[in-house]
Amino acid sequence: MHSGLLLLTAVSLLYIAKTHSSLFAATGFAIIGYVAIDWLIPRVGPSFIKIGLFGKDLSKPKKPVLPESIGAVCATIYLFVTLFYIPFIFYRYIVNPNEELDSSKNNEFGWFPHKKLSEYLSAIMCLESTVLLGIADDLFDLRWRHKFFLPAIAVIPLLVVYYVDFGVTYVLVPGFMKNWIGRTSIDLGIVYYMYMAAMGIFCPNSINILAGVNGLEVGQSLVLAILALLNDALYLTMGSESSKESHGFSALLIIPFFGVSLGLFKWNKWPAKVFVGDTYCYFAGMVFAVVGILGHFSKTMLLFFIPQILNFIYSCPQLFNIVPCPRHRLPKFNEKDGLLYPSRADLVEQPPKKFFIPVLKFLHFFKLIDLEYDSKGNLISCTNMTLITLTLVWFGPMREDKLCNRILLIQFIIGLVTIFLRHALGAALFGYDNLQISVFN
Amino acid sequence: MHSGLLLLTAVSLLYIAKTHSSLFAATGFAIIGYVAIDWLIPRVGPSFIKIGLFGKDLSKPKKPVLPESIGAVCATIYLFVTLFYIPFIFYRYIVNPNEELDSSKNNEFGWFPHKKLSEYLSAIMCLESTVLLGIADDLFDLRWRHKFFLPAIAVIPLLVVYYVDFGVTYVLVPGFMKNWIGRTSIDLGIVYYMYMAAMGIFCPNSINILAGVNGLEVGQSLVLAILALLNDALYLTMGSESSKESHGFSALLIIPFFGVSLGLFKWNKWPAKVFVGDTYCYFAGMVFAVVGILGHFSKTMLLFFIPQILNFIYSCPQLFNIVPCPRHRLPKFNEKDGLLYPSRADLVEQPPKKFFIPVLKFLHFFKLIDLEYDSKGNLISCTNMTLITLTLVWFGPMREDKLCNRILLIQFIIGLVTIFLRHALGAALFGYDNLQISVFN
Repeated sequence: MHSGLLLLTAVSLLYIAKTHSSLFAATGFAIIGYVAIDWLIPRVGPSFIKIGLFGKDLSKPKKPVLPESIGAVCATIYLFVTLFYIPFIFYRYIVNPNEELDSSKNNEFGWFPHKKLSEYLSAIMCLESTVLLGIADDLFDLRWRHKFFLPAIAVIPLLVVYYVDFGVTYVLVPGFMKNWIGRTSIDLGIVYYMYMAAMGIFCPNSINILAGVNGLEVGQSLVLAILALLNDALYLTMGSESSKESHGFSALLIIPFFGVSLGLFKWNKWPAKVFVGDTYCYFAGMVFAVVGILGHFSKTMLLFFIPQILNFIYSCPQLFNIVPCPRHRLPKFNEKDGLLYPSRADLVEQPPKKFFIPVLKFLHFFKLIDLEYDSKGNLISCTNMTLITLTLVWFGPMREDKLCNRILLIQFIIGLVTIFLRHALGAALFGYDNLQISVFN
Repeated sequence: MHSGLLLLTAVSLLYIAKTHSSLFAATGFAIIGYVAIDWLIPRVGPSFIKIGLFGKDLSKPKKPVLPESIGAVCATIYLFVTLFYIPFIFYRYIVNPNEELDSSKNNEFGWFPHKKLSEYLSAIMCLESTVLLGIADDLFDLRWRHKFFLPAIAVIPLLVVYYVDFGVTYVLVPGFMKNWIGRTSIDLGIVYYMYMAAMGIFCPNSINILAGVNGLEVGQSLVLAILALLNDALYLTMGSESSKESHGFSALLIIPFFGVSLGLFKWNKWPAKVFVGDTYCYFAGMVFAVVGILGHFSKTMLLFFIPQILNFIYSCPQLFNIVPCPRHRLPKFNEKDGLLYPSRADLVEQPPKKFFIPVLKFLHFFKLIDLEYDSKGNLISCTNMTLITLTLVWFGPMREDKLCNRILLIQFIIGLVTIFLRHALGAALFGYDNLQISVFN
């Protein structure tokens, strides 16, 4: 399956490079990033263990000790790559400063695209702040209530740039609601900024929640990157001029991200040699939030997070203690057959809230949870409410790598369907799609 | 002495605020930064010790264990403050977008000063990268040869912005050399960029080298901040329009830096409750490098680093192993009288290079080092070659806080003389000074 995904990415990259030759640099830096990560990880791993950054892999026969927080290396390399990148991205403006002055539509900004540079810098800065936060979390195990909202601070420079550069805060009203509301768009004003800050909080945390199986954190980020690049490729080949610009920007940031993440995946996939830590999850989530916000397609980007959103909603009964939540909800490893089994929450010691029992039975009826009864028909346990456990409930016990691949496959299929529906239904709902020549209608 | 310095700073701040009312926000954020640091340090200290970030204070009777790398907290607060700051700095452009459009001289950049925003963002980004590097160093004790050049990477976005925004790479030729060279200025081209990168390497490392006494790292940074603010105040009250802009920018970044550093100083001054770590030294040095580069007064800024430069030159014989260099060159603490004494390098076990012995005797003659001979007239030891030891050689053994204050006083006097000479001699050498109404000629 992995090689298929890689092939698909390669095709997307070729598509992108064909239309935006400047993105060749991005691909080059992605390869450099991959090589650097692959070279560094085995060399820095022991130092991480030495300073206490390590964890036990509980789903392996001998519970080996692995270096933890290696995602910080990956994120740092990404940041260095994107710094080295700057002269290449703005190369044509530097070498040929009058190019833009000649083109009438751009010369309002003088000969250098400061607007673009601010955008780019605010994106990298937001990511750097996120990495700092992630490192603090990996080192000090911050409390949940502290760390949950901190990414919102990292998003501030981004929101400022959005405000001064675009200030677009209206959303289109779907066709069937137009008559009811009486207009074609609604200006959300400050609510739109709160929505963007919320996105900066949601994306990092949502990747952090869908975790616990070797390779899953990085794998889901790779799938997200592929989906975003596919979407970018669609726009870069068929989109309007302005959408080409923002999706070019998106590809600029995501291509090197794909490179460094692939390097990390090599070491984090089953059987993992390293753990990625919170730093990577925050960093990866923020890459997509940043790209979505600055590329003006935060709503489409959020569609790619449907599996993470579903995982979050599905987890809510346990997160809010309506159903008891064990400290770890990882799948249970069975040493005898080497397979992972769904882990369960004990409902005898700490019964669920009464009003929720019918909901549990309802979920059970639709195979969205597995319930266990004793001989008298009393509820004694339920499977933990995570997408990982649900996959095991649906497809039966399996080895860790199979489980990870299955979840990634589900995520990828949902994403493909989303891209299709986004453009097919988007056109139907809003009367037009921002792809100039829509392939779907 | 401290209260005198504070008074001087307050006067500078008032001067600045009078002319640039937008700098009131900076002062407000400096106070917020101070309060936040002062509140945080005692609360996070134990967590730092818990994860192994601690060190022994060797110059105290019982060698107490103190949290190390607390400067990372200070730097993080500074970064957060400068993020929150953005909407305030660019407030007038956001609220009154047409203000600049009306003013004919600025409207080449459209209604929003993207140029200013890129500058500001590249500055903060450079500092964030420096902090990441510092944290890596504090955690992993990077090797000297690795960490020495890394700040140059953090400087890249800064150099790019400098290139595209100003591209000024010529230096003025002093009057007495004009006839000889045949022109009034020389364009250094790429050499100027290498010089700026070198500044990004030098400033962080130079503060890191002049260290080892409670409060000295933060203290010297505070003195540097005061000197830079004094210089800014001169320009903001008497400078040309363009110099007002760049010194306003400098003050914008240095005022909050002063606030957070003062908070750290309270806990790091004798008797220290915390150590600052490499993170703070790198971060502080980079603040001055960034301000000097983007404010176009990197050469003047370098003049404020004369004590650090002298310390570096003075250290060279030991750094390059011409004279033996013990692993630690801290002053020797005498438990009986509680005073610090000059530490010494043993010249018997590992004699200095032969050619250098006359130099040592020469330095001794001018009281720039202390040599020790045995009864037969053979050299047996010399004092370590650091500004700290030299201060002890000159003024005799003293308590740690006295030593720190003495060094800071020397640094401050050198700085004041520098500011005077810069403007008095600068005008004489180059025929003009960029202060419009020079107070000195």
